[in-house]
Amino acid sequence: MSGTTNGTEPYVSAELYAEVQQFYAWQMNLVEGPGADADAWAQTFTEDAVFESAGEPEPQRGRDALRATVRAGVEHIAAQGLDFRHWFGMVGVEQRPDHTLRTRYYALAMATAPGGPLAIRGSLLCHDELVRADDGRLLVRRRSLEADGRAR
Amino acid sequence: MSGTTNGTEPYVSAELYAEVQQFYAWQMNLVEGPGADADAWAQTFTEDAVFESAGEPEPQRGRDALRATVRAGVEHIAAQGLDFRHWFGMVGVEQRPDHTLRTRYYALAMATAPGGPLAIRGSLLCHDELVRADDGRLLVRRRSLEADGRAR
Amino acid sequence: MSGTTNGTEPYVSAELYAEVQQFYAWQMNLVEGPGADADAWAQTFTEDAVFESAGEPEPQRGRDALRATVRAGVEHIAAQGLDFRHWFGMVGVEQRPDHTLRTRYYALAMATAPGGPLAIRGSLLCHDELVRADDGRLLVRRRSLEADGRAR
Repeated sequence: MSGTTNGTEPYVSAELYAEVQQFYAWQMNLVEGPGADADAWAQTFTEDAVFESAGEPEPQRGRDALRATVRAGVEHIAAQGLDFRHWFGMVGVEQRPDHTLRTRYYALAMATAPGGPLAIRGSLLCHDELVRADDGRLLVRRRSLEADGRAR
Repeated sequence: MSGTTNGTEPYVSAELYAEVQQFYAWQMNLVEGPGADADAWAQTFTEDAVFESAGEPEPQRGRDALRATVRAGVEHIAAQGLDFRHWFGMVGVEQRPDHTLRTRYYALAMATAPGGPLAIRGSLLCHDELVRADDGRLLVRRRSLEADGRAR
Repeated sequence: MSGTTNGTEPYVSAELYAEVQQFYAWQMNLVEGPGADADAWAQTFTEDAVFESAGEPEPQRGRDALRATVRAGVEHIAAQGLDFRHWFGMVGVEQRPDHTLRTRYYALAMATAPGGPLAIRGSLLCHDELVRADDGRLLVRRRSLEADGRAR
């Protein structure tokens, strides 16, 4: 987003904003409650989705790769007995002329071990490209993460 | 919520989503600002409300019990000079055929002692059942809390 | 906000609520991403804006003073190599008869040093007065901060 201040802030309608908020709550819920479902989570991305993290040499490409990665993550978390939560906040949404959405948000990744206090594992600046599936659902086509505190 | 991915995610209208968000901000505000009002907070629950926490043998039942409990909590917090905040986030809302709402959200309970840093007291997974009062207001009929990190 | 429980909670429409949420994400984004723009941030306040913090003897007055202060803050943060984030949450909005808005929200100020964990620098209770610019944009006319844990 550029620093425009002339009334062209990329605000979207309340309907769209509430949909994006609910989509994110839904998406992360799929892998954070009891009954975490890596497959359902992967279905919230397009077949050719790109998932990139600043500082990593290569992005992950494709729903199958994302499914495998998140499944391993879910199993690792379960093996440790952790309760893991992702909070998204300060969400900005911009609608492009082609009806794709660009979102920007902060994320906190937090874990609580059995009997232990909550530990904040990371703070992230995130950008998504969201598109519509044929049935109208939102899907992530690209997710780009920048971890706070990384070397630059 | 089941892991359905066929377009039937339980999203609600922007009007309803914004109402629930404002209800939660309002509700917790009632006991967290100066002038905390345990009675007003209790009025945001139905007369026969049930408040349950995973791992506790018995839920609390009824608005009167909730009022007494929250009043004791407010007084305890004030006696310690703490500033206490509950943050709700990642809210999902599902509307049932009978027009009751089921919500799911994360909560962080945070306290700051005089001159001290903020301490995160707990992370919770929460489910509410919300119903309408005769005058149209939302009321909590059931609140179910699951503290992260508890023994299972 | 008074503790009214008779259906007159100061809820606003979904359109207005989503606009305020997007405004806050936009506003803080202006000084927290790469390319922080203190000038653009200052433009989200009225010319005669008042910015006050409980416990400080004098509020800051006027957009020029705010611009200078935030610019110094942005430069200080950049010099330390920090990633700084403000999260706003639990937002309440009340519309006054004169169409100004009163908002109430919690804020967390968080910083991550290079290679370091996230540190929560402060928790705040915030109240804003928002007005409309001639072009319809929201502007902050008054922002009042109360840091949790301060002496009282």
